Amino acid sequence: MPGNTFGTLFRITSFGESHGPAIGVVIDGCPAGLEIDKEYIQKQLDRRKPGQSAITTQRKEEDEVHILSGVFEGKSTEAPIALVIYNKDHKPEDYKRFKDTYRPSHADYTYQAKYGIRDHRGGGRSSARETATRVAAGAIAMLLLAKEQVIIKAYVSQVGPIKLDKSYLELDLNAIDSNIIRCPDTATAAEMISLIEETRKAGDSIGGVITCVILNCPVGLGEPVFDKLHADLGKAMLSINAVKGFEIGSGFASASMRGSEHNDAFEMTSGKITTKTNHSGGIQGGISNGEEIYFRVAFKPVATINKEQETINTSGENTTIEGKGRHDPCVVPRAVPIVEAMAALIICDHLLRSKTSII
Amino acid sequence: MPGNTFGTLFRITSFGESHGPAIGVVIDGCPAGLEIDKEYIQKQLDRRKPGQSAITTQRKEEDEVHILSGVFEGKSTEAPIALVIYNKDHKPEDYKRFKDTYRPSHADYTYQAKYGIRDHRGGGRSSARETATRVAAGAIAMLLLAKEQVIIKAYVSQVGPIKLDKSYLELDLNAIDSNIIRCPDTATAAEMISLIEETRKAGDSIGGVITCVILNCPVGLGEPVFDKLHADLGKAMLSINAVKGFEIGSGFASASMRGSEHNDAFEMTSGKITTKTNHSGGIQGGISNGEEIYFRVAFKPVATINKEQETINTSGENTTIEGKGRHDPCVVPRAVPIVEAMAALIICDHLLRSKTSII
Amino acid sequence: MPGNTFGTLFRITSFGESHGPAIGVVIDGCPAGLEIDKEYIQKQLDRRKPGQSAITTQRKEEDEVHILSGVFEGKSTEAPIALVIYNKDHKPEDYKRFKDTYRPSHADYTYQAKYGIRDHRGGGRSSARETATRVAAGAIAMLLLAKEQVIIKAYVSQVGPIKLDKSYLELDLNAIDSNIIRCPDTATAAEMISLIEETRKAGDSIGGVITCVILNCPVGLGEPVFDKLHADLGKAMLSINAVKGFEIGSGFASASMRGSEHNDAFEMTSGKITTKTNHSGGIQGGISNGEEIYFRVAFKPVATINKEQETINTSGENTTIEGKGRHDPCVVPRAVPIVEAMAALIICDHLLRSKTSII
Amino acid sequence: MPGNTFGTLFRITSFGESHGPAIGVVIDGCPAGLEIDKEYIQKQLDRRKPGQSAITTQRKEEDEVHILSGVFEGKSTEAPIALVIYNKDHKPEDYKRFKDTYRPSHADYTYQAKYGIRDHRGGGRSSARETATRVAAGAIAMLLLAKEQVIIKAYVSQVGPIKLDKSYLELDLNAIDSNIIRCPDTATAAEMISLIEETRKAGDSIGGVITCVILNCPVGLGEPVFDKLHADLGKAMLSINAVKGFEIGSGFASASMRGSEHNDAFEMTSGKITTKTNHSGGIQGGISNGEEIYFRVAFKPVATINKEQETINTSGENTTIEGKGRHDPCVVPRAVPIVEAMAALIICDHLLRSKTSII
Repeated sequence: MPGNTFGTLFRITSFGESHGPAIGVVIDGCPAGLEIDKEYIQKQLDRRKPGQSAITTQRKEEDEVHILSGVFEGKSTEAPIALVIYNKDHKPEDYKRFKDTYRPSHADYTYQAKYGIRDHRGGGRSSARETATRVAAGAIAMLLLAKEQVIIKAYVSQVGPIKLDKSYLELDLNAIDSNIIRCPDTATAAEMISLIEETRKAGDSIGGVITCVILNCPVGLGEPVFDKLHADLGKAMLSINAVKGFEIGSGFASASMRGSEHNDAFEMTSGKITTKTNHSGGIQGGISNGEEIYFRVAFKPVATINKEQETINTSGENTTIEGKGRHDPCVVPRAVPIVEAMAALIICDHLLRSKTSII
Repeated sequence: MPGNTFGTLFRITSFGESHGPAIGVVIDGCPAGLEIDKEYIQKQLDRRKPGQSAITTQRKEEDEVHILSGVFEGKSTEAPIALVIYNKDHKPEDYKRFKDTYRPSHADYTYQAKYGIRDHRGGGRSSARETATRVAAGAIAMLLLAKEQVIIKAYVSQVGPIKLDKSYLELDLNAIDSNIIRCPDTATAAEMISLIEETRKAGDSIGGVITCVILNCPVGLGEPVFDKLHADLGKAMLSINAVKGFEIGSGFASASMRGSEHNDAFEMTSGKITTKTNHSGGIQGGISNGEEIYFRVAFKPVATINKEQETINTSGENTTIEGKGRHDPCVVPRAVPIVEAMAALIICDHLLRSKTSII
Repeated sequence: MPGNTFGTLFRITSFGESHGPAIGVVIDGCPAGLEIDKEYIQKQLDRRKPGQSAITTQRKEEDEVHILSGVFEGKSTEAPIALVIYNKDHKPEDYKRFKDTYRPSHADYTYQAKYGIRDHRGGGRSSARETATRVAAGAIAMLLLAKEQVIIKAYVSQVGPIKLDKSYLELDLNAIDSNIIRCPDTATAAEMISLIEETRKAGDSIGGVITCVILNCPVGLGEPVFDKLHADLGKAMLSINAVKGFEIGSGFASASMRGSEHNDAFEMTSGKITTKTNHSGGIQGGISNGEEIYFRVAFKPVATINKEQETINTSGENTTIEGKGRHDPCVVPRAVPIVEAMAALIICDHLLRSKTSII
Repeated sequence: MPGNTFGTLFRITSFGESHGPAIGVVIDGCPAGLEIDKEYIQKQLDRRKPGQSAITTQRKEEDEVHILSGVFEGKSTEAPIALVIYNKDHKPEDYKRFKDTYRPSHADYTYQAKYGIRDHRGGGRSSARETATRVAAGAIAMLLLAKEQVIIKAYVSQVGPIKLDKSYLELDLNAIDSNIIRCPDTATAAEMISLIEETRKAGDSIGGVITCVILNCPVGLGEPVFDKLHADLGKAMLSINAVKGFEIGSGFASASMRGSEHNDAFEMTSGKITTKTNHSGGIQGGISNGEEIYFRVAFKPVATINKEQETINTSGENTTIEGKGRHDPCVVPRAVPIVEAMAALIICDHLLRSKTSII
């Protein structure tokens, strides 16, 4: 059953396989009159693209975006915007040996079991390559949000055991892209980079955490009951490849807290209703309250490693498999723009949804 | 914009306020021919109802379910099943003082800001009372899943700082309801109960964690890309009042792990494809792989406490507020059936969705 | 698969069977702050109710509406509004003989074939009784549209071979309810009433046509491509029991016309863009252009007649069946408020949809 | 708000403008394992393409389909199938004069009023060129339906005042494509062709009617209440450019009939339940009953004519406009594959929907 469409009023439909002719996305619901800055879209794609630094996969893909529809004289018309990235010459023979073997902790087996057929080339539809289309669509959402002064900033806050022990309030969020790991704290960034390099040399991979902060989110976004703003953010993040956990505001730490310390007291600040603390993470009862929204997203280590692993083949026989070559030792630096894009899609969708709440 | 409908093929629409005439739910998409065991639905509601034990709120609500449609001679007909619980005599005067004051970390302020109008009586639509309708609908999902031998078991694994340090594999999941905290480890349960009692005496509240395990889930549930099975489970959980975090399988711990330790090697077990470890939590590439699905859900401490708190009133003036009376010091024991119900709704929805995958 | 929800932003979910405990509807997406005039809802239901005149069925049902949620101090809160009509004492034994026999041109056989189970009492879910919930929901849509000065008027324009040969422009649309057939032309109304009385005496039934006019519809409602305003109106009308045809503006007559006579020339009228003719029926390219929207809806004769008919029973044996008693000889007088209600739901939905088109 | 997605389980998302880089469609929900015959898709597109005969527009467009995703080794994988048709060199200067003038009975004015911006080149998104993507997607639906032996045949049954006075039962539905008007009755076809040629010479256009027949539709497709099979067919047809009316089975003629003549008596035929007559048009209570489904679709005359017409410009001043060149004098011969495609999409969608009705 269809599952490739995401969002309600700002809605994207994604398509494409890792090694097919192209990947792409159709954005339906972008209001008319928005300037579509193609260079900005490309810039976001470049932040996600492989081969961008010494700690990402060394595969080279240019990921050049093409706009097929929905833009007239540089502006959106509310017609659907189709964005396509053509796949360049792959070497599908590299993947032939994965045809008959299930890679551990990949989607090979579950796709085969579900569909009875599987595009094994580079993971096909299950490849993280699909997330490029999310970044492209998210860039357009970001352009729309910029008109409302909403700012979305994600950064790497953990790689393996190395944790950034500062709150987002203590960090310079404009410094995120100043290093290749995308952690705005220089010292921690250096440690993280070393760990990733060491991990790569060991032929292994490692997990990490991304923290995301949304500034200037208007009050009143989010719907009661099922489509709470943080529930939609959570689904968006959990739908990204390799994500295993999501927490908003105080998150799992709230389980150990008492109400008297957790509750965010209201106060007036320059005529505006604010809260003294922000354990809520900017969302109360599922609706944004004007404070900063912040959340954390946990990524497991990349499943492809350059080590021999036990597995079975499609005939159900024991065998071993070894990844070789050009894979990311840690996904988080390239996942930063993906997290931002998915957050932008959700905020944008709820922004449009909020327009019909009062007559 | 509408946000009170949940699910795609097994779809529920919820309605009702805490102190209005009734709360209810319409289930659309329940296949024809299912025996609808009303007593089972009531039993699940009784597990959630207030006043059930010494550590829950002492309010008494009977929460008696009425079936208004969709059942004929004891069986579903695929017509929508409407379930209604009539609200009994409340004392709305108890809530009058909340009319003009925003309770900290409640939804009072965000509702008022979003809609310009707010049913303040007992929180209105934002009240956790709404979750009773989820439990009722989830019970019907559970009846459907029972035909596929799917079993869903949730239990309390943390209250405040007290953590159950055993995996679900070491626990007797049939013992969950043997104590009032719904923790299947007797010793830990006793500690948790003491802590809650002490918290209540202090007029305070405390958070907790619920772990949920899904046994016998068929292989192949979940959709690639956006509607990954764990993404939908995550949204379902995060939509429950007071939830701040969700993790599947290895969760946040995976961030510290290496691929070589995290990957789940495939092997054959009695002719079936299984994995040696289960860090994936039973889901790979968003699709169930036949292993046990398990996840954890973090609940913040209940916002209503019997202590004086600083806040503002609806005119934007500083004031204080004090909850009094009959509130839950800790939400997790009553939230166990809610977590199970939401999990059942998701699995049931994906079970129906999987029927159209192969021609 | 779920099919009991209708609309996108102003969305209704209907439930209930003819002879079950109740029928009802949940309205999700009604903006906050609308005064909910319960008497107006009841008045619309009274226009649809059985037994209202000599030419409708003589069954008596009060169809009293109950509001279970979503209204606070007389106003909508944007929480879902649940409306319920409890079914009064039926005599289900009247319907026992339909249990094992398929009534010709009813839904008995198709329901049985589709589901393997069927609530045969009064047609169960397939009964036109379900349309009462549409009228109730449509009344709330009408209240919302009244704030935008939109007026929706339907009337009977044909009964059997008797056709009203005047355009809506020549009629007094305020006179529709001045007679029991709901045709604003007194002479034609009298003829229609005579024909229905004669048909009833003959134990037969007869078809008819309803024309609907929408005045003051704002420019710009309707979406390009699939959700054209008239496509959604068409679906809405065709979803009403017994409807066999729909035409907008020039309709089927346009097939015989030339472009030079059919095209509606634009002109300026008091500073407003208008068209000299209105063959388009107020909609161009799927979007309202500010002219009057008008369309016609064809109803087949009621399938229940007081004559012996050949059919088969559920065992596949030849048999005969004879309706007896209290059925409508012609459905159109009671269908007028249903057509208006469905039109109101569509216009209201598209009104809300239009709010997100321009940033 | 998004309106470019159509269908629930077999769901298409369309994009593209007449004179932009490309038009295309993403099909989400096509089950895995279907052989995707690209030549068949192209053949259907060729039946719709301009310049195919002396009675269509003489514009030449090749409309070559490209498959960008979702097909692996010739078969569907249930990943979304993206089909793209690149637009060839247009002469957008041809359309410059339409930039500032509203063509009568086109969508120029309503788009401008709704969005404040409009791709005027060839009608942009409102162009009937968009229907090529429906034909492409419908071809895949047709391939799926072929596995269930469902056959869909549409033909021209009226051009201007020339009506084919035979039922589909009297026609050879395999002869539809034997002439350029696509009317299976040779004599009537010749008359229709003459009329169109004469109309073209006069610089005018003319309307028409297409009849569609669906053979071998399984019993049980369609959902009660809102998503009745004929309601969805009606919406599908009314969403096609230039369509003004839809009728199923007895249609508008049923309004003049009595129940005793209209009811379709059940009988057993070779052990199968059938009906003696088929006024219902193969659908009862919104659900297919196994009889042939047939319906009629009315098309208005094409709005573009080679005559001077009065209109206004975008500044609200009176002016005149004259189409010139290469437009269809009558849309129906090229609309036959569009009607078939939309019917296929609906039947396919309901076929998948029916799979979840019984446990």
